[in-house]
Amino acid sequence: MSVTLEDLRRAQRVLEGQVVRTPCTHSRVLSKITGAEVWLKFENFQFTASFKERGALNKLANLNEAERAAGVAAMSAGNHAQGVAYHATRLGIKSVIVMPRNTPFTKVRNTRELGGEVILHGETLADAQAFLEAELIGQRGMTLVHPYDDPFVIAGQGTVALEMLEQAPSLDTLVVPIGGGGLISGMAIAAHALKPELRIVGVESAGYPSAFAALQNDPSLVKGGQTIAEGIAVRNIGRLTIEIIREHVAELMRVEEPAIERAIGLLASIEKVIVEGAGAVGLAALLTDPARFAGRCVGLVLCGGNIDTRLLASVLLRQLVHEQRLISLSIDIEDQPGFLARVAGRIGESGGNIVQVHHERLHRGHAKSATLEVLVEAQDEAHARQIHDDLQNNGFSVRRGAGGMEFE
Amino acid sequence: MSVTLEDLRRAQRVLEGQVVRTPCTHSRVLSKITGAEVWLKFENFQFTASFKERGALNKLANLNEAERAAGVAAMSAGNHAQGVAYHATRLGIKSVIVMPRNTPFTKVRNTRELGGEVILHGETLADAQAFLEAELIGQRGMTLVHPYDDPFVIAGQGTVALEMLEQAPSLDTLVVPIGGGGLISGMAIAAHALKPELRIVGVESAGYPSAFAALQNDPSLVKGGQTIAEGIAVRNIGRLTIEIIREHVAELMRVEEPAIERAIGLLASIEKVIVEGAGAVGLAALLTDPARFAGRCVGLVLCGGNIDTRLLASVLLRQLVHEQRLISLSIDIEDQPGFLARVAGRIGESGGNIVQVHHERLHRGHAKSATLEVLVEAQDEAHARQIHDDLQNNGFSVRRGAGGMEFE
Repeated sequence: MSVTLEDLRRAQRVLEGQVVRTPCTHSRVLSKITGAEVWLKFENFQFTASFKERGALNKLANLNEAERAAGVAAMSAGNHAQGVAYHATRLGIKSVIVMPRNTPFTKVRNTRELGGEVILHGETLADAQAFLEAELIGQRGMTLVHPYDDPFVIAGQGTVALEMLEQAPSLDTLVVPIGGGGLISGMAIAAHALKPELRIVGVESAGYPSAFAALQNDPSLVKGGQTIAEGIAVRNIGRLTIEIIREHVAELMRVEEPAIERAIGLLASIEKVIVEGAGAVGLAALLTDPARFAGRCVGLVLCGGNIDTRLLASVLLRQLVHEQRLISLSIDIEDQPGFLARVAGRIGESGGNIVQVHHERLHRGHAKSATLEVLVEAQDEAHARQIHDDLQNNGFSVRRGAGGMEFE
Repeated sequence: MSVTLEDLRRAQRVLEGQVVRTPCTHSRVLSKITGAEVWLKFENFQFTASFKERGALNKLANLNEAERAAGVAAMSAGNHAQGVAYHATRLGIKSVIVMPRNTPFTKVRNTRELGGEVILHGETLADAQAFLEAELIGQRGMTLVHPYDDPFVIAGQGTVALEMLEQAPSLDTLVVPIGGGGLISGMAIAAHALKPELRIVGVESAGYPSAFAALQNDPSLVKGGQTIAEGIAVRNIGRLTIEIIREHVAELMRVEEPAIERAIGLLASIEKVIVEGAGAVGLAALLTDPARFAGRCVGLVLCGGNIDTRLLASVLLRQLVHEQRLISLSIDIEDQPGFLARVAGRIGESGGNIVQVHHERLHRGHAKSATLEVLVEAQDEAHARQIHDDLQNNGFSVRRGAGGMEFE
């Protein structure tokens, strides 16, 4: 069952006025940093803060009367759950969302607040999936709203590309996150129908390269593991979507966690917007391999903005460490009056701002010595070095490094 | 010298295509939270991340040939400095920005990167001001670009209101931050000329109510002190601006720091945008006195987005504490094997996530006892109480509170 440009046009008419036509703007600073002309599509500004509403609504709007009456079911603890619950409620359609039992409560609550009935079932996604199929689809006759492997969903997601090509006609490259492949499939169909020479680059996180693994016929490439890009941590690409990717997407990239973190940090500090990990992988791809995009006119989809607050704060602080604007210094000191004052005095003279101090007495030197671990705010790398060198030149034994300091 | 709607229209033509026509959008969630219909004007999306570009550019564009040749001077370490430097460079006009000697280096660098010459002079703002007037204006014949007390600057800032009334014609109330008064003066002139019944509410931080103090004829009301809203921490309202405020602004509000922090947090978690303290005071006003705005159609100006990363991370984490999604528990324990495991086990059973642990052995109880200080992630207030009560019901002596735990 193939998806065509006409399907996408129909989806666009369905979505009009019901989802946000998000801005797509040029970023001068990110262009300067990456060497490409960078355009950003702000899908994090959707009501539920992700593009998932598009596919969900297009699916819902194409149900027949009997299907509407029976309601819809979905499995997701994330953005898809919210997209389905929100638009189903708005259209007066019952929605049931299945999540594994260990799902964090905030995700349950977010979906319930949008009017979705949440059923917690099973220990794993597979358990929840089995329940969904047997109970909700099988017994209760509800319609599945699949997060990606459905022609209506794919057509809905593809409207992102229709908008981008209207908003930024000069684009010659689209860089699109891949989880299950719904977004890139829809976008690729749109792009190739309207502008066949357009390059489409799919981006996966290094631990979950499900499209790459499928094209290589090597499922073992999907290693899994922790990732900040939860939204695209999908082990199995869709059956429909992989065929579309095979046909339309010539390039796949895998990005590592540090690049994703850096991308989140840059979007916050430069663009003043908050994106989740999955929403930052496009920029991470440009940062990882700028030569591949040099001089191109590149559209990035900031596909979602739902990131845990503590995680975001942690990423922002880790970026300061990465840029050496927060440095940790370990200084061997004699455990006697006035020593800390001398150290603090030198750091202050160098213009460093001490934000945390810890005395370590057990693991180093002898009983009368100690190590002072100081977390210092510096202006940049050169300033960090200057603070360090000034201490050294004044006779202190000083080491750079994490030094066991935690800041969270 | 009065400023008229015609001056603002002229400014709008000058600015067209040179500053961003920022979005102005309705927020359903903030409307629900506050009880008003909330519209947000995203001036944090300007290139230098604040509205200050508008006034600066309008002033620069109205210089004559001789003035352009002599260059311009300004005093500011913040958004005004960047606005002047950026547009002066773009127009081929030399700009010199004076900052006090103790200005953080990042602010100096930001302005230099935009092409401004930065001169660090004097220990205080008054010193820097004196140098600016004597040396740059007096000796070198440069033109002052005042941050607010200038008709061209006021007219430039007023274009924010022209755009908002075009973008959201239903607005009946504008809530506008007041620092030196440039933004609210220009906006009030626009609003009252176009829609005389429109309510204009000026918002100041509690420590720096310079307009309120001027209207009350009581300078002692300006107490100063630390504020997260640095951008409006102005001790003296302008001479021109106070006259316009007197005529056009019927209501002034003062907001406290916790409300400003909460507003920054809500804009991040709901709207996925980053605003600086001054940019959040409008929402802080709605949170402080919702009855005053109930049922009104309120436009808020998110006037800037330049907030220090470490400060932002700290505000986000403090909001989690405020919402009891991060709680600190102090638990008296016997200093013996297995105790921590029991405590951690109970907290885990309750669904709490331990993110930090500290043993305090010196200040409480006797030599064989200790206090365990645990930082725990909870889902909300009710869950926090449940975690606490469960420990208590299982025989632990437990106290809530900051407990000396630092998280930064």
